Amino acid sequence: MTDLHGNSIVIDALQCSAFDRDLLLAAQKGGVTAISAASVLWENFRGGMDYVAGWNRLIDENADIAMKVRTVADIHAAKAEGKVGMIMGWQNTSPVEDRLDYFRIFKDCGVGIMQLTYNTQNFFGAGYLEERDSGLTGFGREAVDEMGRSGILIDLSHVGVQTSLDTISASDKPVAITHCLPRALRDVPRNKPDEVFQACAEKGGVIGTSLFAPGLPAGNEANVGSVIDALEYTLDLVGEDHVAIGTDFSHNRPRPGPWLLWANKDKGTGRTLTEFGSAKISKPEGIRTNEEFPNLTAEMQSRGWSDERIVKILGGNWLRLLGDVWG
Amino acid sequence: MTDLHGNSIVIDALQCSAFDRDLLLAAQKGGVTAISAASVLWENFRGGMDYVAGWNRLIDENADIAMKVRTVADIHAAKAEGKVGMIMGWQNTSPVEDRLDYFRIFKDCGVGIMQLTYNTQNFFGAGYLEERDSGLTGFGREAVDEMGRSGILIDLSHVGVQTSLDTISASDKPVAITHCLPRALRDVPRNKPDEVFQACAEKGGVIGTSLFAPGLPAGNEANVGSVIDALEYTLDLVGEDHVAIGTDFSHNRPRPGPWLLWANKDKGTGRTLTEFGSAKISKPEGIRTNEEFPNLTAEMQSRGWSDERIVKILGGNWLRLLGDVWG
Repeated sequence: MTDLHGNSIVIDALQCSAFDRDLLLAAQKGGVTAISAASVLWENFRGGMDYVAGWNRLIDENADIAMKVRTVADIHAAKAEGKVGMIMGWQNTSPVEDRLDYFRIFKDCGVGIMQLTYNTQNFFGAGYLEERDSGLTGFGREAVDEMGRSGILIDLSHVGVQTSLDTISASDKPVAITHCLPRALRDVPRNKPDEVFQACAEKGGVIGTSLFAPGLPAGNEANVGSVIDALEYTLDLVGEDHVAIGTDFSHNRPRPGPWLLWANKDKGTGRTLTEFGSAKISKPEGIRTNEEFPNLTAEMQSRGWSDERIVKILGGNWLRLLGDVWG
Repeated sequence: MTDLHGNSIVIDALQCSAFDRDLLLAAQKGGVTAISAASVLWENFRGGMDYVAGWNRLIDENADIAMKVRTVADIHAAKAEGKVGMIMGWQNTSPVEDRLDYFRIFKDCGVGIMQLTYNTQNFFGAGYLEERDSGLTGFGREAVDEMGRSGILIDLSHVGVQTSLDTISASDKPVAITHCLPRALRDVPRNKPDEVFQACAEKGGVIGTSLFAPGLPAGNEANVGSVIDALEYTLDLVGEDHVAIGTDFSHNRPRPGPWLLWANKDKGTGRTLTEFGSAKISKPEGIRTNEEFPNLTAEMQSRGWSDERIVKILGGNWLRLLGDVWG
């Protein structure tokens, strides 16, 4: 690992890995300062609370190498102590059910990031897999306000285009697209059109480049260079203050396997929405594990990027955005 | 109101009033710095969360005169700002259900005090109305440990004698008896024998003298003097560092009325345990409302108590105990 990587605050804005001690050690070894762990997809209120409970327990049991992140200061503390900072960042608002008051309750429990919708329609708006996206609902506008008041960063990665644009426009605060690739590079539904990235950036938000092979032009043949290519595309589009990384690592989730099959059903129990639960999907060569994180930095350096730019991409931009929203 | 009352931090360690703006204004007028509001009696997990949600809303809607208390610093801030500090302090652990992990979750939401049991047996021990009290259960020992780790003050007011003694002995931290009268003055089950008060004090805990007429020798004929008499008894027994006040005010809860009838059934749905839901019960004359709080101080002063002692009784002892447990 280069000095630049070792000295930087490195933030992975999305993993749905099933964390255990080995994974935390791998992240530590890979110089990852903080990870937003986002395995909540379809859980209801009680399921969300049980996730919080399990999470607290995991961090307690690994307090020598990991710590809970609630604030930007916590991320700096994780860096100083050489621990992996764990952010609770969910991929759905489903645990809030129909109660806006529950946003604050989950925030008090440490949930700092929530995707407004997962893949399909919920009370607030449409996911990217709904055939028709009528945008942010009336209740969704209230949710966006309440998330802003509560200091929860809104994530739009799996959210439909219209709902995404409406949310960016309705939100008083900048928002995130934690893990997404440009549709301009590969025209698949899960990738987002330029206009969404641009709107997000104009509002002060950040787009995390993901490592999801089906969204990369090279698919399963992709490598570290392919990821940096995608990152460069978005960077040219919106500028270096608005781009970062969200790996979408799903370690300890066998594919095919029950968790990913559940994930790819509507609400976990309905029709199967995509084949991603069983299809062969490889992360890009050279960046398949948390230990390999330094390879991303090395590739940026080999392309002659300035240290300043690299520091922003690795974590500086997430730090700024989290500070803006968490306060 | 005397200067001493106006300048002191005044803490009421238990009310089960249904708070609204008028009540908060009354408390402000009565020079009450902080109130532990403890209307959770039989709620399950979801009910407890809904209580938190309603509570956050009440405080938000009255942010000009009230604030949420999570720390001792918050109580000092409430005093400095002339607001009423609201502590969430439940009268049962029922919302935790069978999940020790939920203690931390509720603490994160701001619940700083919990009675181990309400009137009857739960997973952790026996309430004072169980015919037989076999003491703290095995799971109860784990609960006491987890409450200590989470920084939740344990309250034993309605807890059975054996369970109370076991809890005091098992707890690493001092505990509270937020609202209780001495059985030595009136031999009714709800009052506690000297040995429980002494054990509580020896561990560094605090006993809040309550204004519950059926526990006072004069019953419904009691007045402010009767309350101070009871306070003096406990004070002589355990010393001035271990006595304070918990009014047990139940404003906006008509008697008879649905809430008190529910309260006095086992789990809210079982047999009626006491007649307190429908009996005529008067608070002592001169201290029937939050506005009348200064009358307690005046009576202490008229008895020639030192200012130092009065300051401890009014709030100083609760402040110390909350600091010990909340950290």
